[in-house]
Amino acid sequence: MSDKTSNQMWGGRFAAGPDAIMEAINASIGFDKRLAAQDIAGSRAHAAMLAATGIISDSDAEAIREGLLTVLSEIERGEFAFSTALEDIHMNVEARLKEVVGEPAGRLHTGRSRNDQVATDFKLWVRDQFDAFEQGLLALIRALVGQAEAGADWVMPGFTHLQTAQPVTWGHHMMAYVEMFARDLSRVRDARARMNESPLGAAALAGTGFPIDRHMTAQALGFDRPAANSLDAVSDRDFALDFLGAASICAMHLSRFAEELVIWSSAQFRFVALSDRFSTGSSIMPQKKNPDAAELIRAKIGRIFGANVALMTVMKGLPLAYSKDMQEDKEQVFDAADNLMLALAAMDGMVRDMTANVANLEAAASAGFSTATDLADWLVRETGLPFRAAHHVTGALVAMAERKGCDLPDLSLEDMQSVSPAITSGIFDVLGVHNSVASRLSYGGTAPVRVREQVARWKEILG
Amino acid sequence: MSDKTSNQMWGGRFAAGPDAIMEAINASIGFDKRLAAQDIAGSRAHAAMLAATGIISDSDAEAIREGLLTVLSEIERGEFAFSTALEDIHMNVEARLKEVVGEPAGRLHTGRSRNDQVATDFKLWVRDQFDAFEQGLLALIRALVGQAEAGADWVMPGFTHLQTAQPVTWGHHMMAYVEMFARDLSRVRDARARMNESPLGAAALAGTGFPIDRHMTAQALGFDRPAANSLDAVSDRDFALDFLGAASICAMHLSRFAEELVIWSSAQFRFVALSDRFSTGSSIMPQKKNPDAAELIRAKIGRIFGANVALMTVMKGLPLAYSKDMQEDKEQVFDAADNLMLALAAMDGMVRDMTANVANLEAAASAGFSTATDLADWLVRETGLPFRAAHHVTGALVAMAERKGCDLPDLSLEDMQSVSPAITSGIFDVLGVHNSVASRLSYGGTAPVRVREQVARWKEILG
Amino acid sequence: MSDKTSNQMWGGRFAAGPDAIMEAINASIGFDKRLAAQDIAGSRAHAAMLAATGIISDSDAEAIREGLLTVLSEIERGEFAFSTALEDIHMNVEARLKEVVGEPAGRLHTGRSRNDQVATDFKLWVRDQFDAFEQGLLALIRALVGQAEAGADWVMPGFTHLQTAQPVTWGHHMMAYVEMFARDLSRVRDARARMNESPLGAAALAGTGFPIDRHMTAQALGFDRPAANSLDAVSDRDFALDFLGAASICAMHLSRFAEELVIWSSAQFRFVALSDRFSTGSSIMPQKKNPDAAELIRAKIGRIFGANVALMTVMKGLPLAYSKDMQEDKEQVFDAADNLMLALAAMDGMVRDMTANVANLEAAASAGFSTATDLADWLVRETGLPFRAAHHVTGALVAMAERKGCDLPDLSLEDMQSVSPAITSGIFDVLGVHNSVASRLSYGGTAPVRVREQVARWKEILG
Amino acid sequence: MSDKTSNQMWGGRFAAGPDAIMEAINASIGFDKRLAAQDIAGSRAHAAMLAATGIISDSDAEAIREGLLTVLSEIERGEFAFSTALEDIHMNVEARLKEVVGEPAGRLHTGRSRNDQVATDFKLWVRDQFDAFEQGLLALIRALVGQAEAGADWVMPGFTHLQTAQPVTWGHHMMAYVEMFARDLSRVRDARARMNESPLGAAALAGTGFPIDRHMTAQALGFDRPAANSLDAVSDRDFALDFLGAASICAMHLSRFAEELVIWSSAQFRFVALSDRFSTGSSIMPQKKNPDAAELIRAKIGRIFGANVALMTVMKGLPLAYSKDMQEDKEQVFDAADNLMLALAAMDGMVRDMTANVANLEAAASAGFSTATDLADWLVRETGLPFRAAHHVTGALVAMAERKGCDLPDLSLEDMQSVSPAITSGIFDVLGVHNSVASRLSYGGTAPVRVREQVARWKEILG
Repeated sequence: MSDKTSNQMWGGRFAAGPDAIMEAINASIGFDKRLAAQDIAGSRAHAAMLAATGIISDSDAEAIREGLLTVLSEIERGEFAFSTALEDIHMNVEARLKEVVGEPAGRLHTGRSRNDQVATDFKLWVRDQFDAFEQGLLALIRALVGQAEAGADWVMPGFTHLQTAQPVTWGHHMMAYVEMFARDLSRVRDARARMNESPLGAAALAGTGFPIDRHMTAQALGFDRPAANSLDAVSDRDFALDFLGAASICAMHLSRFAEELVIWSSAQFRFVALSDRFSTGSSIMPQKKNPDAAELIRAKIGRIFGANVALMTVMKGLPLAYSKDMQEDKEQVFDAADNLMLALAAMDGMVRDMTANVANLEAAASAGFSTATDLADWLVRETGLPFRAAHHVTGALVAMAERKGCDLPDLSLEDMQSVSPAITSGIFDVLGVHNSVASRLSYGGTAPVRVREQVARWKEILG
Repeated sequence: MSDKTSNQMWGGRFAAGPDAIMEAINASIGFDKRLAAQDIAGSRAHAAMLAATGIISDSDAEAIREGLLTVLSEIERGEFAFSTALEDIHMNVEARLKEVVGEPAGRLHTGRSRNDQVATDFKLWVRDQFDAFEQGLLALIRALVGQAEAGADWVMPGFTHLQTAQPVTWGHHMMAYVEMFARDLSRVRDARARMNESPLGAAALAGTGFPIDRHMTAQALGFDRPAANSLDAVSDRDFALDFLGAASICAMHLSRFAEELVIWSSAQFRFVALSDRFSTGSSIMPQKKNPDAAELIRAKIGRIFGANVALMTVMKGLPLAYSKDMQEDKEQVFDAADNLMLALAAMDGMVRDMTANVANLEAAASAGFSTATDLADWLVRETGLPFRAAHHVTGALVAMAERKGCDLPDLSLEDMQSVSPAITSGIFDVLGVHNSVASRLSYGGTAPVRVREQVARWKEILG
Repeated sequence: MSDKTSNQMWGGRFAAGPDAIMEAINASIGFDKRLAAQDIAGSRAHAAMLAATGIISDSDAEAIREGLLTVLSEIERGEFAFSTALEDIHMNVEARLKEVVGEPAGRLHTGRSRNDQVATDFKLWVRDQFDAFEQGLLALIRALVGQAEAGADWVMPGFTHLQTAQPVTWGHHMMAYVEMFARDLSRVRDARARMNESPLGAAALAGTGFPIDRHMTAQALGFDRPAANSLDAVSDRDFALDFLGAASICAMHLSRFAEELVIWSSAQFRFVALSDRFSTGSSIMPQKKNPDAAELIRAKIGRIFGANVALMTVMKGLPLAYSKDMQEDKEQVFDAADNLMLALAAMDGMVRDMTANVANLEAAASAGFSTATDLADWLVRETGLPFRAAHHVTGALVAMAERKGCDLPDLSLEDMQSVSPAITSGIFDVLGVHNSVASRLSYGGTAPVRVREQVARWKEILG
Repeated sequence: MSDKTSNQMWGGRFAAGPDAIMEAINASIGFDKRLAAQDIAGSRAHAAMLAATGIISDSDAEAIREGLLTVLSEIERGEFAFSTALEDIHMNVEARLKEVVGEPAGRLHTGRSRNDQVATDFKLWVRDQFDAFEQGLLALIRALVGQAEAGADWVMPGFTHLQTAQPVTWGHHMMAYVEMFARDLSRVRDARARMNESPLGAAALAGTGFPIDRHMTAQALGFDRPAANSLDAVSDRDFALDFLGAASICAMHLSRFAEELVIWSSAQFRFVALSDRFSTGSSIMPQKKNPDAAELIRAKIGRIFGANVALMTVMKGLPLAYSKDMQEDKEQVFDAADNLMLALAAMDGMVRDMTANVANLEAAASAGFSTATDLADWLVRETGLPFRAAHHVTGALVAMAERKGCDLPDLSLEDMQSVSPAITSGIFDVLGVHNSVASRLSYGGTAPVRVREQVARWKEILG
């Protein structure tokens, strides 16, 4: 760790000189081999189209398409020798194809270039991630709806500023996250629809003079249509930014829920017990359970949004069409996608496994005169007091309860009438946390009956 | 600027002590007064609903609704005295309303709270921005389509790595940006549809026991429906993040075009002349024209994406429901929206005003053997050479032309046949930049006929 | 809020056409007027130097220097009419100077340009902020040291994963933040030293042929030396990035402490009571106190780090020397500096005012067998058990205590010996939270004696 | 790529259920094995200290220290079987140590915990990176100084807004980057000094009751001192943020130079020729050379600053002391460091290899009346015209030259005197680009003599 060592390290790392440096910074095969299946699917579709349009012979196309399946199976079996000298996945596959099928391999690259090829491969990969993202969201929503159904009428504190504001129901709280993840779902579906245009056939940047049929390859690869401008098709990475943007907002939602789970798991809150499977313990403090998974989920927004920043920064100010800068797109999306899927799966598992501590939730909800707002609203509603005046009366009653060391429902009717003679025994229908939540019947409110309506709506959606 | 000065500055800034500090950090009226029109629109809808549901009297509602119009006109005329002691726009308006209409003002805040009120106000404001964003995009797209139509067959270099790769048409290049801004349009419309749910009536967080009609206020304010979960309704800032996300990607597109305009305006390129209106000159170098507007547009991605980072960071890990942290949402969106609209308008103006230097574009496109790819493709297409072999022949011809100090179309047929006897005079149909672009007829390609099809499609869309 | 309205808004905003748009995007006087004092200080130094080197006459210099003071006092009294047509602070000041002193004003701009002038102004402004930053940190450190001294032996839970791990002292926890803010201090001082080089005299970018004395102006403005390369001097914004970087890390530290204060203020924790001055209450729940200031401080990292992202993005890929993009530097730094100073002052005030709930802290520290580690360490130290074996014994004793419903110090010696006969009564010296913290005497440990040493060290540093 | 496939993918990825998910999200050995050498160095120092203080026996310490060397050599030879079940590098090493040396291994973990251990390991690793960063900067500076020395008097255009403003020298331009990288060097050295405090012995968070000697381990590991607060020592990641901050600013500098190299390599500029080693060619356009390395270097700011954003986001709002979120720190720093070192090495190589096109540079510098400023300055200096009046005269002369189709030095004295009779033949000493640059003798100016002074200064610094 001396200067000498680091000097040697520096030297050592790049001892092989400029050529080694260039290879290290330039080659992408180290990461773009993850696109192998997409690359081969794209080439198979391209070969079929080249034959259908008469650009190559049917037999060449057949040889290419079969040969590509051979290469794919070699890759899937782990028997493929990736070569850094061949730079990227496209050249690696094509070189091996040539070994497998010979001369026809040289006809595959007609009417396309690496620029549209990599855009196609990467889009196919990202599209799969959108689909996996959707599945992950649906699974998590299902888990939340399950929790909401079980606890539609469990009462817990509704916080503002992490201070108890009003009682709410557990089910209502769970369904709040369903709404968030439902917006994520909407974002994912919109983005997937927007990106589903095929770059294949844009060639280097200008299109091609070969009579290719871009609609045919688009259809074969599940795209809705070919991209309408070849310069844009090879220069566009919006689809990756849309993925990272949607992933970042979802990761933000996950971070909020994870934060709650960490706080709720503290000895001071004890609102939930997380399962052992998503916690770690201490060899000497058997009662201690660290919410490791929740903390890690909370942190994932860092790298996912960091990837969004990274790619946005890369794209800033790039002239058309392809610039090599754009090679920095893939690792960011790979890492973000891997971590997002992991975080969704871990949250899904945690939600399914966690146990609400119903008694603690209710006790916490009942503390702190949490139904003072209900009392004030009752005064407005039943006695016609203006809002601000009702607040004044309520403040006096809370102060009285505080002096007596009791909660609002424990005050006698006489006590209450000594402050405001208009109060009747009807007041007791809204005091107490169960009365409070049951009364909040406005659309979207916390009343169990409203929560159950939302649960039913979602169960129908989820099928 | 000595330590003493800065000490005093430090002291001076907060000399008034804790109360001044708290007011400075806590009050939002300094910026949320921009929400005045939205706040009043929301309150007017709320008052009408309170009367329709019998919660307040028709006469109270009428007084409130009229009074709010009075307040609004005071604000619009600049006669309203905003008070920091009243903290925010909601309290400022309500306090003034009380002065104007007296006691009924106290009934307005029934069945709502500041939490759903601010969410509603801010959503209405952001929704307007989505609409302005859409208008700005449409205007810019129109300008680009105009340029594309004018120059559908002007030839210019198509770059990769800022090196001439193949000739393309000016129209094709302009239409590439149309595709980008069209994706922005799609993003804007999706986000606007997703966010168009009313928070009003979510109250503090739990809904309310008053028999309010959230569908009625939602409709009055142009929302598609009320938000389905009151906890989420007051905690959600996805709509602001969606705005910032869409704005960031659009700003990235603008930065790419702006970069091109800066480069194209250099003495070395001279591809375009920007108008004096969007440039600044030098008092002593009359021929010098600095592309200031283009540079400023290029830079706007900084603050717009910075705002996105800011709000995402604020939201990270916030427990439900409202936390005061969320007050930091507005200034970011205000600044990003203002600068985005300005950048779109400036780009629109610049595009309308700029003049392509057609001769320079064509000369640049013709240099550097830019039709070598056309030659190779011709060899594949017409002589059946495999792709890689055709490249070998082309390389030899380019080398020959270089030795002779001429371009490819200047080689004689004999010269060409000395390298590859299969070449016929048909070769000259694809050499030369006009032939080259005309031949790239694949869907989305750069051929003028294709560009004109896209222009026609867009003119129909734009109406 | 209809399309029509937004259309009008869009139109209205830019109705005045291209010239209005260009003025809106181009002029900087709206924000750079904050540099007025720095601009005038720089010009006064420059004028003095021009006379000293014989470039202008002494009488011209004297007229300029006096005139500039006149302009400054007009600005300070709010009597200066800033003009957008004059674009920026430099031209506004110079134009007014001309009115005040006439012809000599025209000689001031000799041997400099706006490029070095704005770099000088902005550097002087940022340098002041570094000084204010330092003062703010010192004030906050002083407040923390005060809390640490008061509570050097108050016991509280030391958390990992927000789970009680071991007891620590309040003083120790406060001093952890002193270390963080001390690193901020170091970062500020390093950055201030690094940036203290004068750009003045770099002129537009190439230096000048006038025989100026850059060392003289550097000295007059408190710089350590003139910047050594004129191209770099006008292109460099590292000093602003260094400020934003240091501010961001400091804001991160503040966010961590603010998060703790929010959690500690919850009804479930009740570790601290924040003063009314930095909280807000509820008109109907008098016991409720929202930690607004803490939440706002927690949020400030958003805009401060957002500003860092913004400026870094702006600077990415800018060729030398000055580009107009760089005009986007100031507002980011202004906003970040304002908010950082406010957050530091608010945290300082909150720390001074807050009251630790000593009894609750100690009760929380004692729960959960928090001294199990002490027991295990005692076994290793006193009986020679290997670490992992000692953990096994400790686990058995904790389980026994849990069964008996008591804490570890409540077990009898006989109970303990039934698990491990080697245990002696010396064990009780380390059980119990006060014994536990007192025993952690390693350098930097939580023992009150160690905390008091650190407090003493800091009191000496703070003087 | 159908829904079915992605469903299966989703299912397949996490088919093994919750345990597999938890292992995937929780284990760090996949990346923290890069800390093996640091982990072992730390443990060896710790063991020696435990013996020196009598906490363990000399023979145990000796066995541990020898055993650790054995483990290290296994790792270095690639013979170590890393186990995910053992979670992290610490447990992997300790488990293997137990197999190698038996019972004494169990005594190593006395008086420390994984929290201070990982902080120590990571700090040692980052410190090495600071050293490598320094070496990389010095190498690059050396290369730039070499270019500057060679071309101290080559004339090129000095740009503002990418428009020619004034002539400068190649050497001056190179030395501008030397100043930038010198600030990076200063930032690196400051940060390295700030972070060089040892966390070892902070234990879990509270320090320890064992009589350890933290100064001894600090010294053995090359730290300046032990960290003064144990809570802070395990919670602090400032050193990683400082690294990422310095790396980001350096990457920004690299992006600016890379942008220039890309532009300078264009056919339109032809200012430099990059070597084949750092470019890629085209098989059919032999004259085409893509500046791939420059583009990739330009892009590196994306992932490096993205990593900064990621870690800052992770740290936001984390309560003390250790939270599992902090495990997300390493991969960000690993990736940023690897890419920064690569970018520095590639830039170093490119600078050494590149060839300035001296004739093109001078021709470009001479175009566009680039010495108009010199003419104006001469008028001020020699004839006493005020600055603004001199500009007026200059404008008239430029207009005259433009009409005549010549440059300023080509005008006759008579021509000039027809505009301003005060002009003498001395004017020709400052016109022409060589005269112009030679005249800019102010400190830091572009005159060759000034550039050579700076080159000499740097050669002395570099030794």
